[in-house]
Amino acid sequence: MTPIEEMGLRAKNAAKILRTSDPETKTKALGMMADAILAHQDEIIAANEEDLREAEINGMARAMMDRLLLTPDRIKGMSDALKDVAAWPDPVGKVTEDYTRPNGLRIRKVSIPLGVIGIIFESRPNVTSDCAGLCVRAGNCVILRGGHEAFRSNNAVTDVMRAALSEAGLPEDCVQLVQDLSHESAHELMCLSDYIDVLIPRGSSRLINRVLDESKVPVIQTGAGNCHIYIDKDADPKMALDITVNAKTSRPSVCNAAETLLIHEDAANMLPDIADALTAKGVELRCDEHARDILAGKVSDPDMIKEASETDWGTEYDDLIMAVRVVSSVDEAIDHIDKWSTHHSEAIVTENEETAQRFMAEVDSSAVYWNASTRFTDGGEMGLGAEIGISTQKLHARGPMGVDQLVTYKFMLTGDGQIR
Amino acid sequence: MTPIEEMGLRAKNAAKILRTSDPETKTKALGMMADAILAHQDEIIAANEEDLREAEINGMARAMMDRLLLTPDRIKGMSDALKDVAAWPDPVGKVTEDYTRPNGLRIRKVSIPLGVIGIIFESRPNVTSDCAGLCVRAGNCVILRGGHEAFRSNNAVTDVMRAALSEAGLPEDCVQLVQDLSHESAHELMCLSDYIDVLIPRGSSRLINRVLDESKVPVIQTGAGNCHIYIDKDADPKMALDITVNAKTSRPSVCNAAETLLIHEDAANMLPDIADALTAKGVELRCDEHARDILAGKVSDPDMIKEASETDWGTEYDDLIMAVRVVSSVDEAIDHIDKWSTHHSEAIVTENEETAQRFMAEVDSSAVYWNASTRFTDGGEMGLGAEIGISTQKLHARGPMGVDQLVTYKFMLTGDGQIR
Repeated sequence: MTPIEEMGLRAKNAAKILRTSDPETKTKALGMMADAILAHQDEIIAANEEDLREAEINGMARAMMDRLLLTPDRIKGMSDALKDVAAWPDPVGKVTEDYTRPNGLRIRKVSIPLGVIGIIFESRPNVTSDCAGLCVRAGNCVILRGGHEAFRSNNAVTDVMRAALSEAGLPEDCVQLVQDLSHESAHELMCLSDYIDVLIPRGSSRLINRVLDESKVPVIQTGAGNCHIYIDKDADPKMALDITVNAKTSRPSVCNAAETLLIHEDAANMLPDIADALTAKGVELRCDEHARDILAGKVSDPDMIKEASETDWGTEYDDLIMAVRVVSSVDEAIDHIDKWSTHHSEAIVTENEETAQRFMAEVDSSAVYWNASTRFTDGGEMGLGAEIGISTQKLHARGPMGVDQLVTYKFMLTGDGQIR
Repeated sequence: MTPIEEMGLRAKNAAKILRTSDPETKTKALGMMADAILAHQDEIIAANEEDLREAEINGMARAMMDRLLLTPDRIKGMSDALKDVAAWPDPVGKVTEDYTRPNGLRIRKVSIPLGVIGIIFESRPNVTSDCAGLCVRAGNCVILRGGHEAFRSNNAVTDVMRAALSEAGLPEDCVQLVQDLSHESAHELMCLSDYIDVLIPRGSSRLINRVLDESKVPVIQTGAGNCHIYIDKDADPKMALDITVNAKTSRPSVCNAAETLLIHEDAANMLPDIADALTAKGVELRCDEHARDILAGKVSDPDMIKEASETDWGTEYDDLIMAVRVVSSVDEAIDHIDKWSTHHSEAIVTENEETAQRFMAEVDSSAVYWNASTRFTDGGEMGLGAEIGISTQKLHARGPMGVDQLVTYKFMLTGDGQIR
């Protein structure tokens, strides 16, 4: 057996215990994991400092260094997140159907854990504890594979959580961290369908595409967010401006930030003000010809108005850049979204209910908004609790995936000798 | 664009219309498809006769020829199945959650079609109309790829259904049949993630494994059924015999038929009668040493008692063969199942409620039975309607997948200018 196969086997064995553990034990374990992370803050910070030192030597960009950094505040955040998950209702063991067939066979449909979840992620070390907490709450074992830049931090956090699990009477192998970060071990993990039930990649589209290419384990795609704002001819101008600026600039690096603005030609008079508000926040606008015509001579910072190419419609900038296109109808907006969207989140701004309803019915994305910013596609904001990712595929779960989406079900059939 | 890409694009365009079609239109179309199949029975049978002639020339086995054969009775069955699906409640547009956040944002979770479903199948031509009906009821377009041996039959059935769809005011491209059955076109279909939302392979494990290997589209694995019967020490002997014989012999070729019998050593006295009942039905028994010892000199047909090898535990025979193993506890039975099962259906026969509950809680299969035959894992038998397949994976749906499992959901968020 290879080390990765051994991890798989250990996870599967731990899952046999965890899947029938009672809610109280899991709650207690999560609370102890939260406490342990605070209690061992010094070790975690020491490990993180080593990661940071190495990152600096390797010339990591400032923004990436900040994502890697763990402070007492951030560690408290990780601990609090575990406490929140501990308080979340246990999603396992819910009887969602219970009926008896004419032949007397009683059928119950009962929620159960998925089993073993593999998570491949990059960047921030808090993902380690967030994912572990969500998985354990739903009765799942997790095999985490973080990025090498956070290797020591992730190990420190994992060690603390494993010790807490053990103290709480659960197998420490409920949470494991891959130690061999080679390309080969990642491939092996993706082929471990005997032991892993679901694989969730979290990170760049490059990572997600690699997992889709190689994985033999069922995958949930997450996070690709080429989100659109469509300003209809019947939009309220102030609302249109506020929503666009918020969706683009409040946190440009996240997946629910808007990347393209579509605006109805009859709302063209709103465009110069919106462009000024965006460029004032440092946003470069990549505009189609029609939009450039409208903006010509009407904006305070013409240098920020660039020409859009076809590539722009399909790009998730995750940056202070926004593509802008003028459309002649809501249908053209819907068609554009259909063609280019990653089906994450799209919003229409309009006072016209009929137009809004068409948009919401016909746009095929996990979240469709009428008169609100796309930034609300987030487990916490939607009241779904913490999230393990935002699914952009249609199988299993769509949009924010929290604890309640980390279960499956089985049918339990009880008879008195029924045969067919 | 290749022919396969063109099919994908046509399906996607048809899906835009179908996904917002009202329930009545879909019901009407399904009824017209059912009527058309009856009305055009002669053409369908003529096409089928050509397939049969070619199959005979190619030396197809008698059992396979029978699967391929369409008779007026079987065509009536196909038509009736479409009528049943027409009468099934529309699963689209159900609001499963509706709540308002503190900031006034109203969130609804609404069921929607999956979109475009690809189905790769072998053998029987009735799969063509069954799958088309299930997909259309749930608002999905379908791209079917049947086996070459049923090519003319599948085309005849598809043509009739497409004409009926068109007459009912829906795009005929809601149902398409792949014409190029080369290895390459199958691969292309599996990589068509721009147009196909879900791929469902139906057929041999070789087919399913190929799809898992190659597909870039999310896959639902179906049908692998290495099912177990466990006879506990506290089993009722008659019930144990009846259930085992039924699960093995009532239809050995289907996925919910049992393949392995596990029996508690304290129930060993039941084994000779069970062996006799099975061999009388023509079942060959592949037994471990302990079982052979028990049966030695106590069965009427000793020639049917063979030695089991490790391979037998992992084999789905789909035939009149059953592996037999003696275990010393319910734990050993659960461990055996955990190791060898395809997680389809497993049954325990016991009068001991505590043992039964442990078995049902700990066995990680889509359907677990207490005192009933595994043969009930079937959409119709479980009251779930017709099925497109029986999922053996944990994502999305487990067990029989009917109309209600062919939908996903989206979040519809309505605000009055909320920003974050």
